[in-house]
Amino acid sequence: MQAPEHAQYLHWGATSQDIVDTALVLRLRQAVSILDARLAAVAAQLAELAEAHAALPMAARTWGQVATPTTFGAVAAGWGRPLLRHRARLAELRPRVLTVSLAGASGTLSAMGPRGPEVAARLAEALGLHRPDGPWHGERDGIAELAAWCAAVTGSVARMGEDLILLTRSEIGEIRLGQGGGSSTMPQKENPVLPSLLSALGRVAAAIAPVMTGAIAHREQRDGAAWMAEWLTLPQLVMAAARALDAAGALTGSLAPQPARMAANLDPDGLGLIHAEALSFALAAHMPRPEAQETVKALCREAAAEGRPLCALAAERWPDLVLADAFDAAAQTGTAEADARAFAIAARRAADAGG
Amino acid sequence: MQAPEHAQYLHWGATSQDIVDTALVLRLRQAVSILDARLAAVAAQLAELAEAHAALPMAARTWGQVATPTTFGAVAAGWGRPLLRHRARLAELRPRVLTVSLAGASGTLSAMGPRGPEVAARLAEALGLHRPDGPWHGERDGIAELAAWCAAVTGSVARMGEDLILLTRSEIGEIRLGQGGGSSTMPQKENPVLPSLLSALGRVAAAIAPVMTGAIAHREQRDGAAWMAEWLTLPQLVMAAARALDAAGALTGSLAPQPARMAANLDPDGLGLIHAEALSFALAAHMPRPEAQETVKALCREAAAEGRPLCALAAERWPDLVLADAFDAAAQTGTAEADARAFAIAARRAADAGG
Amino acid sequence: MQAPEHAQYLHWGATSQDIVDTALVLRLRQAVSILDARLAAVAAQLAELAEAHAALPMAARTWGQVATPTTFGAVAAGWGRPLLRHRARLAELRPRVLTVSLAGASGTLSAMGPRGPEVAARLAEALGLHRPDGPWHGERDGIAELAAWCAAVTGSVARMGEDLILLTRSEIGEIRLGQGGGSSTMPQKENPVLPSLLSALGRVAAAIAPVMTGAIAHREQRDGAAWMAEWLTLPQLVMAAARALDAAGALTGSLAPQPARMAANLDPDGLGLIHAEALSFALAAHMPRPEAQETVKALCREAAAEGRPLCALAAERWPDLVLADAFDAAAQTGTAEADARAFAIAARRAADAGG
Amino acid sequence: MQAPEHAQYLHWGATSQDIVDTALVLRLRQAVSILDARLAAVAAQLAELAEAHAALPMAARTWGQVATPTTFGAVAAGWGRPLLRHRARLAELRPRVLTVSLAGASGTLSAMGPRGPEVAARLAEALGLHRPDGPWHGERDGIAELAAWCAAVTGSVARMGEDLILLTRSEIGEIRLGQGGGSSTMPQKENPVLPSLLSALGRVAAAIAPVMTGAIAHREQRDGAAWMAEWLTLPQLVMAAARALDAAGALTGSLAPQPARMAANLDPDGLGLIHAEALSFALAAHMPRPEAQETVKALCREAAAEGRPLCALAAERWPDLVLADAFDAAAQTGTAEADARAFAIAARRAADAGG
Repeated sequence: MQAPEHAQYLHWGATSQDIVDTALVLRLRQAVSILDARLAAVAAQLAELAEAHAALPMAARTWGQVATPTTFGAVAAGWGRPLLRHRARLAELRPRVLTVSLAGASGTLSAMGPRGPEVAARLAEALGLHRPDGPWHGERDGIAELAAWCAAVTGSVARMGEDLILLTRSEIGEIRLGQGGGSSTMPQKENPVLPSLLSALGRVAAAIAPVMTGAIAHREQRDGAAWMAEWLTLPQLVMAAARALDAAGALTGSLAPQPARMAANLDPDGLGLIHAEALSFALAAHMPRPEAQETVKALCREAAAEGRPLCALAAERWPDLVLADAFDAAAQTGTAEADARAFAIAARRAADAGG
Repeated sequence: MQAPEHAQYLHWGATSQDIVDTALVLRLRQAVSILDARLAAVAAQLAELAEAHAALPMAARTWGQVATPTTFGAVAAGWGRPLLRHRARLAELRPRVLTVSLAGASGTLSAMGPRGPEVAARLAEALGLHRPDGPWHGERDGIAELAAWCAAVTGSVARMGEDLILLTRSEIGEIRLGQGGGSSTMPQKENPVLPSLLSALGRVAAAIAPVMTGAIAHREQRDGAAWMAEWLTLPQLVMAAARALDAAGALTGSLAPQPARMAANLDPDGLGLIHAEALSFALAAHMPRPEAQETVKALCREAAAEGRPLCALAAERWPDLVLADAFDAAAQTGTAEADARAFAIAARRAADAGG
Repeated sequence: MQAPEHAQYLHWGATSQDIVDTALVLRLRQAVSILDARLAAVAAQLAELAEAHAALPMAARTWGQVATPTTFGAVAAGWGRPLLRHRARLAELRPRVLTVSLAGASGTLSAMGPRGPEVAARLAEALGLHRPDGPWHGERDGIAELAAWCAAVTGSVARMGEDLILLTRSEIGEIRLGQGGGSSTMPQKENPVLPSLLSALGRVAAAIAPVMTGAIAHREQRDGAAWMAEWLTLPQLVMAAARALDAAGALTGSLAPQPARMAANLDPDGLGLIHAEALSFALAAHMPRPEAQETVKALCREAAAEGRPLCALAAERWPDLVLADAFDAAAQTGTAEADARAFAIAARRAADAGG
Repeated sequence: MQAPEHAQYLHWGATSQDIVDTALVLRLRQAVSILDARLAAVAAQLAELAEAHAALPMAARTWGQVATPTTFGAVAAGWGRPLLRHRARLAELRPRVLTVSLAGASGTLSAMGPRGPEVAARLAEALGLHRPDGPWHGERDGIAELAAWCAAVTGSVARMGEDLILLTRSEIGEIRLGQGGGSSTMPQKENPVLPSLLSALGRVAAAIAPVMTGAIAHREQRDGAAWMAEWLTLPQLVMAAARALDAAGALTGSLAPQPARMAANLDPDGLGLIHAEALSFALAAHMPRPEAQETVKALCREAAAEGRPLCALAAERWPDLVLADAFDAAAQTGTAEADARAFAIAARRAADAGG
């Protein structure tokens, strides 16, 4: 713009949408770099947690019920694996999204005459953007793919948020957050504010992403209504993902597992019922599995009715069998420790590969 | 099940979710093959249309306004390019989605003891499924990615549906459908039933996909509520995409462009205003572009006020300039023909590559 | 706060959510007054249009096809009736939404002792708010009802937007907007910017409302995650409705129907096929309806094949019947004029009743 | 149809949409009666629970943290009050939704000539339906209002589902369900299957309702795409609400609160920290509230650090004050019992009023 004689060539043959979409893509390039870096940072912190606590036993819950033992390292790995996959997806979608737009009024670049394609190619090169496989004024599947990715990323950290809301409950208390929310009138409380924020952002991102999916049904060569709907949506999605990853990083960097509470919750009523499955399979070495399961089921009822631990009842019933392992949580965590360590290695490898 | 002595090993160490999720994946493998084949078929038909009508001029519309000329081949290519991209995305997401699930009650496969991972690997091999990078009972980003893909596919054909609803309007009539919907009382009408179905399916698919995105926030090791929400959603999404592609195929296989109506609509009021941009750029060879644009804007107003064609006014004003090309729609379609042919080649290449 | 000795009583016994929710309701009271006034204003302008053009014939379109004649007044009434209904709904939901919140830490107001309910009642009175039927920290159906209402209001004006996008198309041109959007390079275009904005806002409002519906599933006595999700959503919904009504008012206050284009589009091809239904029913006075419809269907095909108007063919076929009325659009608009006038009266009555 | 001479009058002047929409409304009339009856039945069962357990103390949780005492009766009332409000809303929306449609091809009923309105009025009377304030082929705010209501109803019972998922957790166990879901391999578990179903239905209903909101933006006189989108959505919403209420009824009819677990959870660590707020307000009678709150906050930290109950520390510190009430959960439930009983009365009154 310092060269007035060139001013008339600005916007030459381009339509406003070319300018706006190319500018959008240039900003998105910055945004996805930030998102990728944050994904890497959260994954790295989760890798540390997974490794440090790879063998720390805690109760796995299914349908909200204490099921069988797992380890905190495995739980952290479960929060982290999706983040690595999201990084892989991002690498795949980048060339579909980070493309220049220069197609003129109706997508034919006609005002530039025969040299249009060459100009478009040089512009892509100058800006370091990919060349699209055609004019994309009305083809919004790339942008919508990025939007769905943002929503999925936000959902994946919302999952960690939901788990933390549960794990920090008064009755559970297996995790303490580095930064809780104080209550104005109840000093004993530490509200899981950031985990709740993750949950809220996850809901909002999931809800608004379909505006972008719907905007794929862009009418004719350029559709102002669909385009404006994108403007009202995409920035919110990128910000939701960015804020969620930021909050997730604050959490993973400061949360502390509480081994004593974890141990207590592995056997909340002292009956050792969490070992029922392990006992069934230990017995299945000595009798058909259906019979073993039926027997253990009855034994569980007996334990609950009499208030006596399952291991004691089992020892009485089968004095000759060696069943101790079945009642040792640490011996019953299966692949948990290995899964935790495998994630830590994968996260480190992904980080080394430059993401 | 013909071997009773093996019956007890069925479900051994697996949880019901392992069985259900693996069965789901086996069915999804069939489903995505069908979807991929339909994408390929629709793309092939669009490639034929794009090639056959690569140079057939028609009006491009932006914001619902006749803008500048394009060709019907370019329009067909614009419907088809996203389908090729969706096939590329599907190839990428297959290994993330088509994975076996065998992780036991709490994701640790503990009931299988140390041989668990080997059993899981052999099961994957036997079923021809990929091995996941960890237990995925609670990691639903893969399934959600497929759901978002189904919604985006449905959206891309809904785009063609929306365009056909417009192009078959009484006032436009640039496309005739092979199969219209008769009106019960208005014999002159041919309702665009299949294009409307595409639009409806696109809306529904976009709306329900976020249930799957939301279900990424799966609580703890297995979350019945999130899982059931998937059951109520994923089949609908796959069916929406499948039905939409089926309807799209019926349309692309039978629709007929109407060159006479296309020609008429290139100049609906006989004033030739669609050539305004071309005239501006032709004049910009002889004067600064801003001046050219201002002048043409004034000339357009004059044309409308006096009811005289823009080309006549231009000839009067600049008798010495050769401006004929600017008023020839076929000469003003820029890259449209080349884009149409390039798409046809790309579609054929994708088909040859086996999708 | 000017009385330090009272400062300790601020927040006494209340929880932060009481303060925030009551403040929200006070702001919503302002917001819904503005929304109601804007609904009334748009309805009043539509009433004027409906009355002024009650008998102005134009083509009705069904499935995008010219169907039979209606009037522009009837169309304007169709945009306006939902707005009157939305005002009625708002009157019903106000007492459910505009309620004070004062229920203390856990919804029991226990810190206030036995005088709690009296304090709550006086606070409601002092603020001019309704008293809820119980603590509503966790009962969000009222707030969600308002959110759904905002989305429905936005949808109703988006409908007008969609119609205006069609009616201002180059090929149709039956409405001119007072304020169009100029194109940077195509001087002949007037982009329907505000109608497109209405469409975009309608999509976004529809998409985000379910966050509020989902937040009805508020967990336990107070759920930070659900509550934060509301914060991220409700303001956007109120603003979407407010902006949409503002834009709608700008449109209804300045749009101008184009009778000449309307007349031309009633018979786009000069064959008079729009009168097919009227002819069928005129003939049904002289023959069974099925026979009449079959005959007219055949005649329509003949008209199209021979390029001769339907009225001429009918006159030849039934020289003795008086069928002129069937071919007079103004005589074939049925209840359109009456519907337009009835709406104008209803809108005026609603305005007089103070909304 | 037994009178062939009348057959030709079937469909006379009506369009197919008149038939389909009127039929839809007749079915919806049945459906909303069923929904209303189920709402009444669930509310009646909740009223019984609220009354029977009006004074049964349990911990209220906010942000997932044990906050202060409430009663199970108050919790049941909190599940029930929204249902009464939904019944009130239904009564309001019935006349807006249950309206006949008879408006002919383009909403003008022109084929019926001047007697059209009379025919429409008689048809409404004969079918026992309301008369609309105008043709509603394209005005879908009524149908969308019903859809949003279904989603909100489903959301309100999903809230009970979410609470039951938490209250039946192994670590909490304050509610037992009459019908649990057995685990295939873990006999100690009782999965909250129906509560999870409520949660799943709530998510799905919230997600698909916006299709109906979006379909309010119905284009022109009749829009096949928007109409088909309704077909794919409304039945699902009605079924979701109906199934959710059915499941809710099964739950409320059989669930059993567990007073012993409730008592235990009021003080999970034996420190009595749940009484912190009550102590603050008891002290606030003797010192400024800020000082009271600061002091109690410090005392809570002391209690946690030393593992001594808050009441013992308070008795030591203020030997002369009578603070016993502050440490009695039953005395600290504020309005909970009264709220529970008030809901029971309101539910009974609503039932007597015929709903």
